[in-house]
This record gives sequence, structure tokens and C-alpha cells, in this order.
Amino acid sequence: MAFVTEENLTDLAEKRWASAHSPRLAELMTALVRHLHAFAREIRLTEDEWTAAVEWLAATGRISDDKRQEFILASDVLGLSTLVVQLNNRFSPRATPATVLGPFHIDGSPTAPYAFDMSDGVPGIPLFVTGRVLDVHGAPLPDVVLDVWQADADGAYEAQLPKVDEARLRAKYRTRADGTYCVRTIAPLGYAIPMDGPVGDLVRRTGISHFRPAHIHFLIDHPGHDRLITHLFREGSDYLDSDVVFGTKDELVVEFTEKPAGDCPGEGTVEEPYLHAEYDFVLQPSGTEGTPS
Amino acid sequence: MAFVTEENLTDLAEKRWASAHSPRLAELMTALVRHLHAFAREIRLTEDEWTAAVEWLAATGRISDDKRQEFILASDVLGLSTLVVQLNNRFSPRATPATVLGPFHIDGSPTAPYAFDMSDGVPGIPLFVTGRVLDVHGAPLPDVVLDVWQADADGAYEAQLPKVDEARLRAKYRTRADGTYCVRTIAPLGYAIPMDGPVGDLVRRTGISHFRPAHIHFLIDHPGHDRLITHLFREGSDYLDSDVVFGTKDELVVEFTEKPAGDCPGEGTVEEPYLHAEYDFVLQPSGTEGTPS
Repeated sequence: MAFVTEENLTDLAEKRWASAHSPRLAELMTALVRHLHAFAREIRLTEDEWTAAVEWLAATGRISDDKRQEFILASDVLGLSTLVVQLNNRFSPRATPATVLGPFHIDGSPTAPYAFDMSDGVPGIPLFVTGRVLDVHGAPLPDVVLDVWQADADGAYEAQLPKVDEARLRAKYRTRADGTYCVRTIAPLGYAIPMDGPVGDLVRRTGISHFRPAHIHFLIDHPGHDRLITHLFREGSDYLDSDVVFGTKDELVVEFTEKPAGDCPGEGTVEEPYLHAEYDFVLQPSGTEGTPS
Repeated sequence: MAFVTEENLTDLAEKRWASAHSPRLAELMTALVRHLHAFAREIRLTEDEWTAAVEWLAATGRISDDKRQEFILASDVLGLSTLVVQLNNRFSPRATPATVLGPFHIDGSPTAPYAFDMSDGVPGIPLFVTGRVLDVHGAPLPDVVLDVWQADADGAYEAQLPKVDEARLRAKYRTRADGTYCVRTIAPLGYAIPMDGPVGDLVRRTGISHFRPAHIHFLIDHPGHDRLITHLFREGSDYLDSDVVFGTKDELVVEFTEKPAGDCPGEGTVEEPYLHAEYDFVLQPSGTEGTPS
């Protein structure tokens, strides 16, 4: 009979999970068993450590709900989220690279006209982000929707706040006939990831900086093109080279130019000094096999 | 600046977690990052699969509470629990081998006298388990506490029932001066692991049998000896060679001999046919380095 020993256990477990009805699930589960066992064997996981891991996992699940997904945060700080982005978004070097979605995207943001102020009174330095959406040949793409979201000056996303009546620091913009877009908002600041849960408990036991550099999220899902999920980072921000979720990329760091009060992008004027960032997003045709982004 | 690429990401993440204040945590976390990334790279984990995994982990945490620990079950069915037992209990071949604790042990079971009936009216075929607790030289050990627990005929442990007033199918026995013990209970049956949670959802997508063979749990923690957590399995039970948690070991399979009504172990008689199993538990001195159990 096939009773277990330290020697045959991994093989037995792999064979068993190879019985998954879907070939892909069989592939996933056998690889998971193999790598999980290799990890436990290599470090000779103790029973106390195993118990602590089980309790940590349960606590991480229990703190997760519709608005907070602590396992995404765990995946982020382990570099897994960025790795999965890299593996699945091998964009052409001419296209804008992708980065992590993060746990704070909210579906169904309201449609906003050109130069609409999505900050809607949230305090901060006014910021305009303008530019075009292009294809890889440099042709402007009209009617492209840019789903934009960011944290406020306290590092809080709408998804983290108790109850918000209207969309806050998020909106869907659309490119005009010439491919141009204009987002009006406030300058993002660097912020700490939530440190009040099991992920924070773990990070606090290391020398890891728990901050993210200042950034704004963009999701662009345009027919005929690969979906682009990315950020723009503010040049000169703190934490650019220690981003706790490994999200920073050279091509996504842009200058936020200081401008005096007065004329501004879009129509009208601003009564205080403001910032202006310019960026052209480049989308590649669906299914292009590019180099790792 | 150390911005990420597909090539440098794993190294960056490993270096970062190597900053853990405790050397052991650094060792654990860097190995975890390395194996987790190797898994994701090998199978080229897709973004949809990553999302499904994150949701599965959160659901597994949310269903866990004081009485149910779905991550233990997950670890069990992946063979990880048994692997950790094997790695940490390298008993001498003369000692009784260990097996998994399982998720259903309850601390603080009541002390029971020799031959006490721990089934206390729960229906089933009467079973006596008798024998001795010995050291590796065969010397009987007096005053050893055997913490015993099992499922009822429906496969339910007390920990799975809503609210039980008194200890149910669990008790702490003690060896007499000559090292003998006597447990009176009912014959255990094979049972299915809980299939109403995320682990069940996963197992149902495979050809894996979700049953455990009939067994009784023992925990023996005696001063001067390695703690022994083990089961006794009924010889001839179904599922012995397909135990969903990989717990079965040759040395732990014992005959349950059928006996007629009448005299029984302990004092007194039984008014119906009963079963009798004999087993000597052998404890090894603390800290013995044995072969893998």
C-alpha cells in the first residue's frame, strides 16, 4: 500500500493533484505542491512556524472584504503582483509598460469631460495631466477611455474610506478626435501601505520601507489593443527606488512642472500655482508578443 | 535606480526580505519569495489565475474561526501537514511514528479513569483500546497522560458541532503503575473532510477521494520524552491507501478484534458484541535524532 514516508510524500501528493479534471488546474496544482514542499524541505519548516503561518493566513483572509484585499497587499509586498504583471504584459518597447493594478480600483467611475476636475474640492496642489493616446506607429487614437484613480493627500483611496457619496479622486476621461486627453486633479503624494493588518505586522519585522512613491493610476482598455494598467510617478518623489510593491519603472516617471497661477490646460484659469505633467500613452495591438515589460 | 524588470525582480524581492530583523525570519521569507516566484514563472501564472488565487485565499481565511481552520485542511490535502510532521519528528524506528494533528483537537479534555467510556451514550459499536506506554528500551512508563479524541459515527468531531455541554468523544487517560492504559469508546468510522468550503471546492475539481480511513487520535506529551501526536487506524478500513490527508502509516494500522458480549477489559461486562484493539505506544527520549518517521 502507498503509505507515506518523507521520501515518497511529494510524489504521492503531486500524482494525486494531477487528477484535476482540467489540464491547466492539474499543471497549477502539481507545480504548487512541488514548490511548496521544496520550500518546506529546504528551510525545514518547524511545527511552530507552520502553526504561525496557518494563523497568519487565516487572519489575512478575515481582514479582507469588499473594500480591502489583504492578500493582494501580501502579493504586492512579496513582488508576486509585479511578477505576474511582467509575465503577462510583454509589451513592445514602443508601448507604455504596465505596472500593478493595486487593491484600490473601483469599477464604474463616472464619465468626465476633457479637463474635468476629479479632485472636486479635495485639498491639494492642482495638477493637470495632459497628453495623447497613440498606437505603436504614433497615430493618435480618438475615443479612448482612460480610467484614472489616485489617493488623497493623506494616502487614502476612496475604497479605504467609510462611505463616500460621490466618486472621489477617480473618473473616466476620453480622448478627443486628435487623441488628446486632459485630467485635472491634485498632486498625489507618497503614502504608506495599510500597516494595521497581518501584512503590516510582517513588514514591521523587517527593514523594508512601507511607502509607495507619489503616483496616479491609469487603466486603458481600448478595443483592438492590449489592456494597459499602469501608473504615472512624479519625478523626484521619495521612495521611487524603494517602492514597497516594486511598481516603479523608468518609463513611467514624469516631471510635474511648476506653473504660476493663470492660464491652464483646458479652458479657464487657476488662481494658484499649479503643476503640469505631460505624457503620451502608447497602446499596442491586441496579442502582440513583445519583450518583457 | 533599482527599478524592476522581469529579470531582476526576484533578486530585488529576496534582498528586501533579507532585511528581516530575525535571521530565521530572513531565511524563511527569502526562501518563500524564491519558491513563490519560481512557481509563478514556471507555470506562467495568468492575471485571472492570480485573481482567483487571491479570492480563494481570502475565502479560506473568512471561513476559518475558533472551531474551523480551513488553512489546516488546505495544508492537509496538499500533503504539507504530513511533510512538516515528517521533517520534525524523525523518530527512532523503535518509537511509535507521528502523524498529523488535524484541525479538531480541543485543549483541556477531562481526566478519565482507567476504562472510562468516553463515548458516553454516543451510538456505535463498543471499542476497547488497551496496551502500554513504553520507553524505547521496553520499560513501561507509569503516569503518562494519553489525550484521546475521535469523530462520531457521522464523522463529526465535537469541534464541528454547534454547542456541546460536556466533552464528547474525547478524554485524557493515564497509564497505571505498570504502564497500562484502557480507553473505552465506540468504533471510529471513515469520514469525509468538510467539503462545504474553499478546500472542498478545489478537491471537487479533481479525482481525489475526500475520505479519511477510520482512526482515533492520540496526543502523548510526557516529560523527558518527545511529544507524540499520532493516530491508530483500523485494519481493513476503507481509504487506508487513499487517506486525503496522507496520514496513514503501516505501524499505526491495528486489528480491531471482534469479541462476543460478556467480559471485557477493565471491570465489568458488555451486553453486546464489542471490538478490542491492543497497541503499545513507544516514546523516545527528548531530542533523539532518529530516522525520518
